[in-house]
Amino acid sequence: MTIRVMHVGLGPIGIGVLKQVVERPGFEVAAAVDIDPEIVGRDVGEILGFDDKVGIEVQRELEGALADHEADVVALCTGSTLPSIHSQLESIFRAGLPVVSTTEELSFPHFSNEALAGEIDKLARNAGVAVVGTGVNPGFAMDTLPIVLSAACERVDSVTVDRIQDASVRRIPFQKKIGAGLDPEDFRQKADRLEIRHVGLTESVAMIAAAFGWKLDRITDVIEPKIAEEPVASSYLSVEPGQVAGLIQDGVGYRDGEPVIRLHMEAYLGAPQTYDAVSIEGSPSMYTKVEAGIPGDIATAAVAVNTLPRALVAPPGLHTMRDLPIPSWWAGA
Amino acid sequence: MTIRVMHVGLGPIGIGVLKQVVERPGFEVAAAVDIDPEIVGRDVGEILGFDDKVGIEVQRELEGALADHEADVVALCTGSTLPSIHSQLESIFRAGLPVVSTTEELSFPHFSNEALAGEIDKLARNAGVAVVGTGVNPGFAMDTLPIVLSAACERVDSVTVDRIQDASVRRIPFQKKIGAGLDPEDFRQKADRLEIRHVGLTESVAMIAAAFGWKLDRITDVIEPKIAEEPVASSYLSVEPGQVAGLIQDGVGYRDGEPVIRLHMEAYLGAPQTYDAVSIEGSPSMYTKVEAGIPGDIATAAVAVNTLPRALVAPPGLHTMRDLPIPSWWAGA
Repeated sequence: MTIRVMHVGLGPIGIGVLKQVVERPGFEVAAAVDIDPEIVGRDVGEILGFDDKVGIEVQRELEGALADHEADVVALCTGSTLPSIHSQLESIFRAGLPVVSTTEELSFPHFSNEALAGEIDKLARNAGVAVVGTGVNPGFAMDTLPIVLSAACERVDSVTVDRIQDASVRRIPFQKKIGAGLDPEDFRQKADRLEIRHVGLTESVAMIAAAFGWKLDRITDVIEPKIAEEPVASSYLSVEPGQVAGLIQDGVGYRDGEPVIRLHMEAYLGAPQTYDAVSIEGSPSMYTKVEAGIPGDIATAAVAVNTLPRALVAPPGLHTMRDLPIPSWWAGA
Repeated sequence: MTIRVMHVGLGPIGIGVLKQVVERPGFEVAAAVDIDPEIVGRDVGEILGFDDKVGIEVQRELEGALADHEADVVALCTGSTLPSIHSQLESIFRAGLPVVSTTEELSFPHFSNEALAGEIDKLARNAGVAVVGTGVNPGFAMDTLPIVLSAACERVDSVTVDRIQDASVRRIPFQKKIGAGLDPEDFRQKADRLEIRHVGLTESVAMIAAAFGWKLDRITDVIEPKIAEEPVASSYLSVEPGQVAGLIQDGVGYRDGEPVIRLHMEAYLGAPQTYDAVSIEGSPSMYTKVEAGIPGDIATAAVAVNTLPRALVAPPGLHTMRDLPIPSWWAGA
């Protein structure tokens, strides 16, 4: 069995997904769509920097690609917010294709945007296709993983997840996204305009609460700059003391006034350790650590690609990682 | 919503499941069945050592309990092997009840006993109920957890899971099951008669391979005694140097002649560390460690109880942890 994938959106994440689909057994590229004039008309092999062409050229128009395709499923990597992908989803559903999307807000939209989540669910059901939003975070490291680990507990009092990353090894868009190299004042302004932020902590908190059956009073999501105390540098950027090295972001879910779900991210140049850790307080309490962390770039694409086979066979409608069968790498055999 | 549970089998594991169902919100005991004359006729609260009665007396006959019940689901904890529970499953299915069982061979029976697995699946489908075998191991620590972690990978070359336990804090039947206190010769004879063994490594190896889509040449499952080098003791047992402190067991799955899935268990009195660790070689490679381990007794019951809500809503047929939605603790709200 080979799963034929239409790629919509070829930014850094979309390129990562495309690369795996080209390289991994069990998957092949059926079509590729992006609005960037720099890549429209070019072969996807060329875009990936491969010696050989793949035989698929990037198209400009989604509707055109959908009108004449041989795809089984769409990998949608165009935006972070639900409104930004709403009309794209409508078009894709109309063409009868299921969707795996790296859209962060789609990973668990029921909390932030119940109305639009309901509409997307209805559209997908009417079209008879499944849609799911996923990636490494949200979608895996700070929601699926703690949820799965909780299955060994007879009681959970609280959950804390730490995702700590030395950003110097990440791609440049990621380094910019976390504000590395900015002055603190610029960071604050960009954060206020939502130009600097990790999207998804609210969704992950809400997914964990839903899995546990906890009703939360509220979810907070707060971003602070990590100020460099000494000079730090990546291959792309140099940061002086007093400038921003990256961000610290906390998503917290409160229940009866108590912070019961705490998702803590640090992503900055020069972080001394990179790791993911899940701490469950309860019976039993458990501390689980992924040494060296779950690498964001490969893993976001991997989680999305590994979810493609799930979306093909899932019942029609809007799914989340919480209600799909356990995720897994797949050899493509 | 309260899930009403009929408990069938009240050995140590069945008692652990019963205790959680009595104590946890969202669950209640509907009936209890066991053949042990010591407990037949007694209130389950008394058996658990509680001050108060629960109002449910242990019945001797499964058929009698099934003929007149108000249960939603059965927790079946009577045996480790498929043949030992086959006729019990037939009776339970006939009464229209779904089943969560801690029967180790049921956790992934497709490899060892495809014929009986197929028959159980057919019986369950005909009865319109779901059945699943689970627990901490098999069912969670050495199969579900590595499978879920693999979802962050674009390529997996091999998986190693280590489950290392200091057995001195475990219950006495567990200490006996691992051969603690025996002479090496007695251990070997009991191991040959299958009286000493952890049941489930083969099932866990087969489940991982199925999730990945790997065809294995063969699965080996080998038990060795861990010989005490100095005196060790638990509250129940003393072990002299030269005697057996516990067992070391390895389940290995081979693909194209290479050991690609290695499940390594050590359970002995005086093990210096207790932990679970999953090591994936691939892209990315990842090392994940549960510090202090996933405690066997609480967690086996917890995984089973946390699976009860899944079995209620799963489609009819034989399921495994691999195809159910991600497992989770549930607050019972």
